[in-house]
Amino acid sequence: MTDERSTEEEAPAAPQKLSRRGLLGLAGAGVVGLGVGVAGDRGAMAASGSMTAGGSTAGNTAYPFHGTHQSGIVTPAQDRLHFASFDMSSTASRADLIELLQDWSAAAALMCQGKPVGEFGAVDGPYDAPPEDTGEALDLPTGGLTITFGFGPTLFVDASGADRFGIASQQPAELRELPHFPADDLDPQKTGGDLCIQACSEDPQIAVHAIRNLSRIAFGRASLRWSQLGFGRTSSTSTSQVTPRNLFGFKDGTANIKAEQLGKVMNSVWVPASATPAWLAGGSYLVARRIRMTIETWDRTALSEQERIIGRTKGNGAPLSGGTEFTAPDFAVLGRADKALIDKDSHVRLAHPESNAGTEILRRGYNFVDGNDNLGRLEAGLFFISYQRSPAQFIDIQMNLAKNDLMNEYIRHVGSGLFAVPPGARQGSYVGAGLFA
Amino acid sequence: MTDERSTEEEAPAAPQKLSRRGLLGLAGAGVVGLGVGVAGDRGAMAASGSMTAGGSTAGNTAYPFHGTHQSGIVTPAQDRLHFASFDMSSTASRADLIELLQDWSAAAALMCQGKPVGEFGAVDGPYDAPPEDTGEALDLPTGGLTITFGFGPTLFVDASGADRFGIASQQPAELRELPHFPADDLDPQKTGGDLCIQACSEDPQIAVHAIRNLSRIAFGRASLRWSQLGFGRTSSTSTSQVTPRNLFGFKDGTANIKAEQLGKVMNSVWVPASATPAWLAGGSYLVARRIRMTIETWDRTALSEQERIIGRTKGNGAPLSGGTEFTAPDFAVLGRADKALIDKDSHVRLAHPESNAGTEILRRGYNFVDGNDNLGRLEAGLFFISYQRSPAQFIDIQMNLAKNDLMNEYIRHVGSGLFAVPPGARQGSYVGAGLFA
Repeated sequence: MTDERSTEEEAPAAPQKLSRRGLLGLAGAGVVGLGVGVAGDRGAMAASGSMTAGGSTAGNTAYPFHGTHQSGIVTPAQDRLHFASFDMSSTASRADLIELLQDWSAAAALMCQGKPVGEFGAVDGPYDAPPEDTGEALDLPTGGLTITFGFGPTLFVDASGADRFGIASQQPAELRELPHFPADDLDPQKTGGDLCIQACSEDPQIAVHAIRNLSRIAFGRASLRWSQLGFGRTSSTSTSQVTPRNLFGFKDGTANIKAEQLGKVMNSVWVPASATPAWLAGGSYLVARRIRMTIETWDRTALSEQERIIGRTKGNGAPLSGGTEFTAPDFAVLGRADKALIDKDSHVRLAHPESNAGTEILRRGYNFVDGNDNLGRLEAGLFFISYQRSPAQFIDIQMNLAKNDLMNEYIRHVGSGLFAVPPGARQGSYVGAGLFA
Repeated sequence: MTDERSTEEEAPAAPQKLSRRGLLGLAGAGVVGLGVGVAGDRGAMAASGSMTAGGSTAGNTAYPFHGTHQSGIVTPAQDRLHFASFDMSSTASRADLIELLQDWSAAAALMCQGKPVGEFGAVDGPYDAPPEDTGEALDLPTGGLTITFGFGPTLFVDASGADRFGIASQQPAELRELPHFPADDLDPQKTGGDLCIQACSEDPQIAVHAIRNLSRIAFGRASLRWSQLGFGRTSSTSTSQVTPRNLFGFKDGTANIKAEQLGKVMNSVWVPASATPAWLAGGSYLVARRIRMTIETWDRTALSEQERIIGRTKGNGAPLSGGTEFTAPDFAVLGRADKALIDKDSHVRLAHPESNAGTEILRRGYNFVDGNDNLGRLEAGLFFISYQRSPAQFIDIQMNLAKNDLMNEYIRHVGSGLFAVPPGARQGSYVGAGLFA
């Protein structure tokens, strides 16, 4: 049930084309009716030279855009992220929303194959029109790009209660604003949104290129609300991957759900076929949390205290109850004075399925540093992303953590988003098509 | 005269150790006198596992920290950047400044070898003290890290005219605040600084780790003033590298000085041995400019106009006078109505040595995207870095560009810095030692 396998079931179909409106976004007002021609395949361009494509260290891995599920969820987590949230700020037309999703799907399918979103004019392009593709990824490899789309609660019913797009009846009951968690300190400028796009790649320039061009295509329909770059993955989503470290310096996501754990993926990640509304079957829910880390304070904390807070050793990530990284933590093991070796309020214990009635989520977060604040502290943290079949999975775990986690002294949740992630698009169709059926 | 060759002349010497004060910065107030033990070599740790170190796509290239010149100047430009500017905000003691430079040099030498800046406590570390290294790069390869230090004008004479560190007499005559260029729109929060550090690597987590730990070591002496991450190099500094693209989608730096052009490097980059003051001989001057690009406007500009502005084709980067990327532009070639094929105010022409009395600089800039502004526009641009033996080289070219460049409609210089970059440190010594001789 991985992305790769599922696409083999799909019959090939005619490639999607961008709408006149989408081309307008690319080309700017005043230029209409340009046909979309694909100027070249980046991998092929690269192969014709003598060096790696564009000097990039990223390889030519390509993940399919079409399939049963969207890529970018159980796909082995790429190392770089550009995440963007959009508002349908310029239109309340259902036809516009459908057309936008069609245009985004067509462009995403091209980019995931390493192709530009349209002509850039090198050979037969329209010389007196703006280039359709912005060009900064022209020489780069495919770089394992995935583009994953989600729908926020406000797409269905906006803040004023309006059903702008005639889809209020299709809103999943669970797609509501997340509850306020203890100590939440959310910036409205980094929270919410009608739509989201997660672009992941081994090369940041490829992820940035994707978000930039999808933003252009949205012109006159949706506009960027907030966005976040992440430079280092903090979770493995495949057993083939080494566990990375977060900015606390600890291995993160050791016990994460892995793509190869088909039962867990089925039971915890994908919305089941029996779900209501039916359009979300095979999809998932995406939670995004911008978590600021007060790393300066953390860095002045004793190693013993850091390890007590996390519940694992800093060196190899073994649970404090003993063993090596992948040894299951044993919360019953007692040490001196009959105190548990793994503190009852440690992060590993509170986040563990044992403490959450067996609940698990698939994490897919990224480290970020966005310059520094006026006090000379790095604006650093974790851009947490998780996928789960129900938002309740995240809510239960996060409520537990927000109340008790020893780590809370060193983190602050400053941004948030909840999005319903539709299933993958079939060849010839578009992401979210089921919502308008 | 490359970094690699020059270091072979150096005799091995005892490794530098961090001062008590530097360790205090690492360890936090209240903990003193820890010895520095090196916990492990990242390359070796990686090799002991079955996968690439930490899953990073960066390799195990290592550049020497010690040598005739600092690394990170003619070193083949790595793909990722973390740049930081510091103020000596907490001390006016000459001894403190010297000790800081010694501590920074010792830590930088370790990190460039893939080692942590001190014990992280995994094996024999002081368990009840904060870890000396923050740990987020522990499993990563060396990743081609270079760390390059520079001194701003205010280190010598501060804004109030004070000679805080007894080095005013050693200030190079040319190390003055850059002149105001037409249309400069500088943010004081992104401009200037007493000291700067440029950390470059193939892996952003390695560059971030370096700046973070050097900031910690500076505790009580210098504090972060501003910092910038860059995700994609925009220049080649070696003939072995493919020319990358900037966020205008054009190949950038085709005609840049390359490390292999020994004559140009000698005549344009390194401060000559005859220089006054003598401590800067073998060093260079670093100019940093944060250049915001209005990419949304650019993206709506016709391809023909984009190419007229740049003076090269977007596809393969050939000059509009003909040929391929590395063909020399011919500014005399006329087209229709006797107009020059390369516009007289195009960027390539105004920046070309022919238009600047032969003057050249070595560029080493990076693309950046720092989220978006309140209007939903990506906060994107070019973090320009150049190295030259004299600031006059940059000033002459930039004055020419600022007055006439067609590109000015699409860019805004919003941050700036000028730093004197001392020569490389000898083994057993530290960067800038000559300044205090």
